[in-house]
Amino acid sequence: MHYDLPLEEARVYRPPLAVPEDLGDFWARTLARIGGAPPMLTRVDSGLVTVESYDVALAGFDGHPVRAWLHLPAEVLRSGPLPGVVQFQGYNGGRGLAHEHVLWASAGYAHLVVDTRGQGSGWTTGATGDPVGSGPAQPGFLTRGIGDPDTYYYRRVYADAVAALEVLRGHDLVDPSRVVVAGGSQGGGISTSVAALAPSSVAAVLCDVPFLCDFRRAAAVAQTDPYLELVRYLAAHRDQVDRAFSTLSYFDVAVLGRLATAPALWSVAQMDLTCPPSTVFAAYNSYGGPKEIEVYEFNDHEGGAAYHRSRQLEWLAAL
Amino acid sequence: MHYDLPLEEARVYRPPLAVPEDLGDFWARTLARIGGAPPMLTRVDSGLVTVESYDVALAGFDGHPVRAWLHLPAEVLRSGPLPGVVQFQGYNGGRGLAHEHVLWASAGYAHLVVDTRGQGSGWTTGATGDPVGSGPAQPGFLTRGIGDPDTYYYRRVYADAVAALEVLRGHDLVDPSRVVVAGGSQGGGISTSVAALAPSSVAAVLCDVPFLCDFRRAAAVAQTDPYLELVRYLAAHRDQVDRAFSTLSYFDVAVLGRLATAPALWSVAQMDLTCPPSTVFAAYNSYGGPKEIEVYEFNDHEGGAAYHRSRQLEWLAAL
Amino acid sequence: MHYDLPLEEARVYRPPLAVPEDLGDFWARTLARIGGAPPMLTRVDSGLVTVESYDVALAGFDGHPVRAWLHLPAEVLRSGPLPGVVQFQGYNGGRGLAHEHVLWASAGYAHLVVDTRGQGSGWTTGATGDPVGSGPAQPGFLTRGIGDPDTYYYRRVYADAVAALEVLRGHDLVDPSRVVVAGGSQGGGISTSVAALAPSSVAAVLCDVPFLCDFRRAAAVAQTDPYLELVRYLAAHRDQVDRAFSTLSYFDVAVLGRLATAPALWSVAQMDLTCPPSTVFAAYNSYGGPKEIEVYEFNDHEGGAAYHRSRQLEWLAAL
Amino acid sequence: MHYDLPLEEARVYRPPLAVPEDLGDFWARTLARIGGAPPMLTRVDSGLVTVESYDVALAGFDGHPVRAWLHLPAEVLRSGPLPGVVQFQGYNGGRGLAHEHVLWASAGYAHLVVDTRGQGSGWTTGATGDPVGSGPAQPGFLTRGIGDPDTYYYRRVYADAVAALEVLRGHDLVDPSRVVVAGGSQGGGISTSVAALAPSSVAAVLCDVPFLCDFRRAAAVAQTDPYLELVRYLAAHRDQVDRAFSTLSYFDVAVLGRLATAPALWSVAQMDLTCPPSTVFAAYNSYGGPKEIEVYEFNDHEGGAAYHRSRQLEWLAAL
Amino acid sequence: MHYDLPLEEARVYRPPLAVPEDLGDFWARTLARIGGAPPMLTRVDSGLVTVESYDVALAGFDGHPVRAWLHLPAEVLRSGPLPGVVQFQGYNGGRGLAHEHVLWASAGYAHLVVDTRGQGSGWTTGATGDPVGSGPAQPGFLTRGIGDPDTYYYRRVYADAVAALEVLRGHDLVDPSRVVVAGGSQGGGISTSVAALAPSSVAAVLCDVPFLCDFRRAAAVAQTDPYLELVRYLAAHRDQVDRAFSTLSYFDVAVLGRLATAPALWSVAQMDLTCPPSTVFAAYNSYGGPKEIEVYEFNDHEGGAAYHRSRQLEWLAAL
Amino acid sequence: MHYDLPLEEARVYRPPLAVPEDLGDFWARTLARIGGAPPMLTRVDSGLVTVESYDVALAGFDGHPVRAWLHLPAEVLRSGPLPGVVQFQGYNGGRGLAHEHVLWASAGYAHLVVDTRGQGSGWTTGATGDPVGSGPAQPGFLTRGIGDPDTYYYRRVYADAVAALEVLRGHDLVDPSRVVVAGGSQGGGISTSVAALAPSSVAAVLCDVPFLCDFRRAAAVAQTDPYLELVRYLAAHRDQVDRAFSTLSYFDVAVLGRLATAPALWSVAQMDLTCPPSTVFAAYNSYGGPKEIEVYEFNDHEGGAAYHRSRQLEWLAAL
Repeated sequence: MHYDLPLEEARVYRPPLAVPEDLGDFWARTLARIGGAPPMLTRVDSGLVTVESYDVALAGFDGHPVRAWLHLPAEVLRSGPLPGVVQFQGYNGGRGLAHEHVLWASAGYAHLVVDTRGQGSGWTTGATGDPVGSGPAQPGFLTRGIGDPDTYYYRRVYADAVAALEVLRGHDLVDPSRVVVAGGSQGGGISTSVAALAPSSVAAVLCDVPFLCDFRRAAAVAQTDPYLELVRYLAAHRDQVDRAFSTLSYFDVAVLGRLATAPALWSVAQMDLTCPPSTVFAAYNSYGGPKEIEVYEFNDHEGGAAYHRSRQLEWLAAL
Repeated sequence: MHYDLPLEEARVYRPPLAVPEDLGDFWARTLARIGGAPPMLTRVDSGLVTVESYDVALAGFDGHPVRAWLHLPAEVLRSGPLPGVVQFQGYNGGRGLAHEHVLWASAGYAHLVVDTRGQGSGWTTGATGDPVGSGPAQPGFLTRGIGDPDTYYYRRVYADAVAALEVLRGHDLVDPSRVVVAGGSQGGGISTSVAALAPSSVAAVLCDVPFLCDFRRAAAVAQTDPYLELVRYLAAHRDQVDRAFSTLSYFDVAVLGRLATAPALWSVAQMDLTCPPSTVFAAYNSYGGPKEIEVYEFNDHEGGAAYHRSRQLEWLAAL
Repeated sequence: MHYDLPLEEARVYRPPLAVPEDLGDFWARTLARIGGAPPMLTRVDSGLVTVESYDVALAGFDGHPVRAWLHLPAEVLRSGPLPGVVQFQGYNGGRGLAHEHVLWASAGYAHLVVDTRGQGSGWTTGATGDPVGSGPAQPGFLTRGIGDPDTYYYRRVYADAVAALEVLRGHDLVDPSRVVVAGGSQGGGISTSVAALAPSSVAAVLCDVPFLCDFRRAAAVAQTDPYLELVRYLAAHRDQVDRAFSTLSYFDVAVLGRLATAPALWSVAQMDLTCPPSTVFAAYNSYGGPKEIEVYEFNDHEGGAAYHRSRQLEWLAAL
Repeated sequence: MHYDLPLEEARVYRPPLAVPEDLGDFWARTLARIGGAPPMLTRVDSGLVTVESYDVALAGFDGHPVRAWLHLPAEVLRSGPLPGVVQFQGYNGGRGLAHEHVLWASAGYAHLVVDTRGQGSGWTTGATGDPVGSGPAQPGFLTRGIGDPDTYYYRRVYADAVAALEVLRGHDLVDPSRVVVAGGSQGGGISTSVAALAPSSVAAVLCDVPFLCDFRRAAAVAQTDPYLELVRYLAAHRDQVDRAFSTLSYFDVAVLGRLATAPALWSVAQMDLTCPPSTVFAAYNSYGGPKEIEVYEFNDHEGGAAYHRSRQLEWLAAL
Repeated sequence: MHYDLPLEEARVYRPPLAVPEDLGDFWARTLARIGGAPPMLTRVDSGLVTVESYDVALAGFDGHPVRAWLHLPAEVLRSGPLPGVVQFQGYNGGRGLAHEHVLWASAGYAHLVVDTRGQGSGWTTGATGDPVGSGPAQPGFLTRGIGDPDTYYYRRVYADAVAALEVLRGHDLVDPSRVVVAGGSQGGGISTSVAALAPSSVAAVLCDVPFLCDFRRAAAVAQTDPYLELVRYLAAHRDQVDRAFSTLSYFDVAVLGRLATAPALWSVAQMDLTCPPSTVFAAYNSYGGPKEIEVYEFNDHEGGAAYHRSRQLEWLAAL
Repeated sequence: MHYDLPLEEARVYRPPLAVPEDLGDFWARTLARIGGAPPMLTRVDSGLVTVESYDVALAGFDGHPVRAWLHLPAEVLRSGPLPGVVQFQGYNGGRGLAHEHVLWASAGYAHLVVDTRGQGSGWTTGATGDPVGSGPAQPGFLTRGIGDPDTYYYRRVYADAVAALEVLRGHDLVDPSRVVVAGGSQGGGISTSVAALAPSSVAAVLCDVPFLCDFRRAAAVAQTDPYLELVRYLAAHRDQVDRAFSTLSYFDVAVLGRLATAPALWSVAQMDLTCPPSTVFAAYNSYGGPKEIEVYEFNDHEGGAAYHRSRQLEWLAAL
């Protein structure tokens, strides 16, 4: 059902979201804490012959280890520096097994499939923990440390993501000027945030049905988890509503995305019960770089799926 | 929840299923009607560089066109005749887009991804219609033409599948003695049936959480579609119960599988609400060839997923 | 819940639906293909003494056999030519058993209860198959052959319905100038379409909570099957959206109904989750003949049920 | 799903249900309180020409008015005393409108369609109130007055039903030796109870998927209302469990039915979530008269529906 | 989800509800029928040492016995006349066990916890029956006797509530000028109605997420029981819609509340699926006395719960 | 529905659970890490006059701060050392607000209401964080750190609970020989574990519908969260099944409880979908001290609720 704003209204929906005064400082302080040790790469046998794979451990926020797979087209297929794709994951997923996500490597890209810390027990598995605890939180990740931007879970996640981007850019076989960030749902939100936090490092953005956009509206209209984690948290902590939204404003893709400059291809689904289309448009409409968006009129959160993957392959090839 | 037989009982569950007297004749008559025109292959650009893809139209039951993708490892990666995998699809799915299913080609196999006629409007799309109609049937495919083995939908599907197997075996680059049939759910049921109907053409079987097994128990214990299509049909046509099960006995993987001889790797999930584990064991226990089964104790119909894919890659490589 | 347009808006809702240029030609071509053999009537014993019943096989689209029951008031109750009612069925239902639908015969009408081809495995059973297959389609009937008006399932259904109407009009005991078409849900949509396609043959229309109206809005707001079949089809075949709606425009009751001229009594339910009230009003507001509509404020798809049956008995008696 | 006992176990299931010592006295006292004023019959126009209908008000328990429809075959179709059918209703239903339930009259029976006091706001409507209140009860009827057999709701309902039976037997056009009691679900339970409480007045019983049988097992295995009303009552009133079941033992069809002597045709559905098949067999197995039972293997609470209606028409005709 | 009116619209929502001409007479006649015997108080041991408890039986409408608990702070904690709180219960609940509801006594109030007649088989139990029956009604209490204000269930409930208020006011230890009425959901609706019917006896009102407000809108937008009882009743009795709403207008908190004069603290929850926030605002906006309302933005029907209890403790202490 | 073992089987159900060889060492090592700073108590005004309340911060595992409320009967009601109750919370709850949980103080006990670290965003709120992170885990608490007993979440929780017990025993007004541990669901599991880990400090145990018992069976039969968190974790991490259950064996109440010696009153609910009754009996049957169990035959996870509270008040008073 088309339960959210009519498309024509969504296309011009621009909520007046507050921008924290110290947003720049906050992120400068945060990004200063990524990295440390150089990444460790270990060749693995994924069972595939067309793709060469490495188990990567890189240093994220506060140097915490973040795991990823690096996939390259088989050596005989490579010639010259490779363009790259850093792929972030949907909520509760992880980098999976070595043979699971090889689309971009199969298409000729150096392909880094990055874990999301603490996640990876859902549709795909992860290997990266989050050593940081939190105050009382709703089961899930969305409300961990929500009492303060400094302790909020996604501070660490966004920082890890920037670190991963730089790891791929620094690889010998990769052309650092042609590295793309990509993902769907949570991975879409992270991709765009990375493009905003490290605009000079990102060549393009592939952002599908993004999560983490326009939180207050999302809480008001979303019909499924994970946004309902936030609703349940606020239902319990009735005295923390303003404080929570204040924290979230540092991480809202509809706030951060204004700072991005790379060309971007977005997608949105009009029957998306998980990431309401109006919240996606709130972020898309504020996005700072050149942009296009595909609207999938009859899809739920799966969005364009394989159809959109074709669209992305063409769009990237033509960039 | 473990709602079906305890594992120790399931492991020895062998229902006394009736074997139709004319089973051999029926299938001989049926398979005589496949084929006709030679397959047509058209090179396509899937956007991938590691895999070479062809759009295939082959002649199935009564010569009806059946569509498939043929994926080969990129030419530079090939040397000598290729082993092959024919992959059949889950219920309501199809061959998808050209870049969607390339695992086995990425692992070095000639890989034929075959449509199921009339299906392909679900999780993946198809391009193959079924020109044959039916009597009154429940929405879905499971009860179409169920009044008689001659008109039953899966007669045409199994025949198409045998035709597809022979097409891959006949390809110039393929070693016909090393062609495997594979699939999950409906695709698992079809794979095993093909191995039973064309035993000398099949080198191995990969059969995951198969559908189309031990229909009467399936109707009694399954909790989701598509077996519930059968339940609803029988609930409506209260006077057709015996007739329907009589028809189904010609297509039951737990009946046909006795005729198979190829080595097989199966999987079953103990919390599978769609294909109850007891029905999978009914078929596994009667399977005619050498066999192993992986039991996924806490999985629903997704079964072993990527974990089992690793297991299959190893098992096939070691064969 | 009143989830659709407020009643005052629905009462004036007239969506600007496209009328295919060749609509008249298409239906002329189609109706030219009905009939052939004369109907075959076989007296049956339904167990009832007040009604005389016949099993009817009539020639529908391309002469395909369509089954129906003909019920007449017991001979001793008849005098002079009888007015008639042709009753079409709701989705997934059929003519049922001989004693199931005898209201109109009990009220003194010659009553033809007509199957819908391929359907009849739901709340009532049918005896009529559909020998025509289709391309890939969603389980169900709504998307079969949706790629082209010529292959679309409801082309055959509407044509069958016109054929049935003429069969009843041609019966010796029936007054051909006093034959009514009637039905609820799918049966309502068929009734009105028949009144549009054969305006001079229809004396009146009883159209309850009709299906098959204003498809694009229906897809956007309906909350249950069968409209969700269409949504799922479009969700899978993301590149076929316009083509599908183009096909549907030949069958939309809100498009066709403008051509009807007979007086009509409609009903609509404001909490109808299956056939959204706005889509019913879209069709009602465009209906070409004299018309009345009963609004059932707190009913779901059951609509007026027995209360509305009383209303219809009176309305028809007074016509 | 077949969630209850396997059929072979259900067929011999005979729970050791306690019979209250004063069961006979209780019902003798109760039946002494029915009746009073003679029934009032008012001719109504149902809109049907094959059936002649009367609005009946008869005196039930304590003389409370109970409403019913009396339907007769049209006068011209009648010759000699008519056999009769007294039909009791399913839970939350009522006699409906005058044209709704005319099957048995159409089949040649004098047909009394009796309200259930206080009910009639569901699938069919009623016109009979229950002037008696109750102690705290779960919303619904099943737990009203459950603290004592004297105040229990079904005491009044069973008594009303016996009164209705005698009204039809006393009608001028009816043969009192050929009156049948019939009903499904609650109506099945009432029918059998009437046959037990007035064995010499009942010629036969038609009892479909009966409610009100083997309450303790019903509470343990039923998955839907109305038995869940009892579960919720006992969940709240944890100290009233034994008292409630003690009251129910006076009304349990599996207890009372032993006293019945008339031939009976029963039906049961193996997937009945509302009236678990084991509880139906508990009552059937203890039934005192000659008996047959139809088992519907794949049906939920709808049971045999129209198919079973045909079976009943034949069975009654052959009696 | 915020499914109802936006907050800014709800804050000014004032539906034009009809006020029955004889509203005053009706309630004067009604209240004249309460009382009779003096209340009977029996000391009980609740197991608590801080609170002194009494089992109360008081005379409600037509003198029917209504049960309550009276809790007082332990004697050693008392000095001077006590302020009082009369607490009414949510739907299907009751006064519970003696130790269950002692908040207000623990806070120093004489605390009367009053049953709702016939209810008390849900989340808390009751001990008060309703000796009055009704015409056909939906399972539940909301539609009992809905055909006429004189027979409607809530006539007796509101009258009982006024009687209970006067019992507490008449207690020796209580200051009759400082007695508050309080409750949530149904208890909120009753509290406000009591404040309207006995304005000079009520010192303040605590009204949380009230039920029984603006019935027509409630029926149109509520998504759960008990308002859906009304919807189902109207869905069945299609010809009784106006009559039912006419009856309800005598009991609508949005109609009666205009007559109240005491200061009131209300609460509303924006995600309340049971008592839609717009209906709460309809009543709040028409309330006759000084008033404040707390809005819980992310709560369903649980509303402010313990947080709001703190707010109430402070608000009452400051009055 | 009674979906689990029949009561008679459950009463003797004793699964052969493995006891880790180093169980004693593990817990000795663990308990050595609790405490540090003395507890800090701050008087708060809860709004109640019968109870005196303190906000407590005590040192739990590794000295992490754990928050609790200490409630005492008002000073004027106290004489001599008080018996004590330490109350642990259900999953996702917390100590709540100061006025929320005062039953035991109202009954004359010194009452410590203890937070569960990291929890407290559900039905009641908490104020205690968990500063320790984890590897990839399912949203929720049950699988955090499940890869090793040393990192498992409940290691810290059980240790905190022992620390809280000693804090109450060390309070000036409390008789350390008369301190009881109590709780329902998770709180029941913690209570019994504390009685096992500190047997000489516990005077009695009140354990209701406990969680954390017989994990492998719980995972196989539970139908709701939180046990389904474990199922989902194992469904994702198919290769970690044995490792996870190995970790859980250090925390299983059915393993630890053998070490307890205090008298205990348990309760179990036969329709408990959250904590299956068989798993409760597995723990009860292995419990080491004198014991009684109340069986609530028709309750889900709410169990005996207020009825059982009365039972506990009496049982404790009689101890």
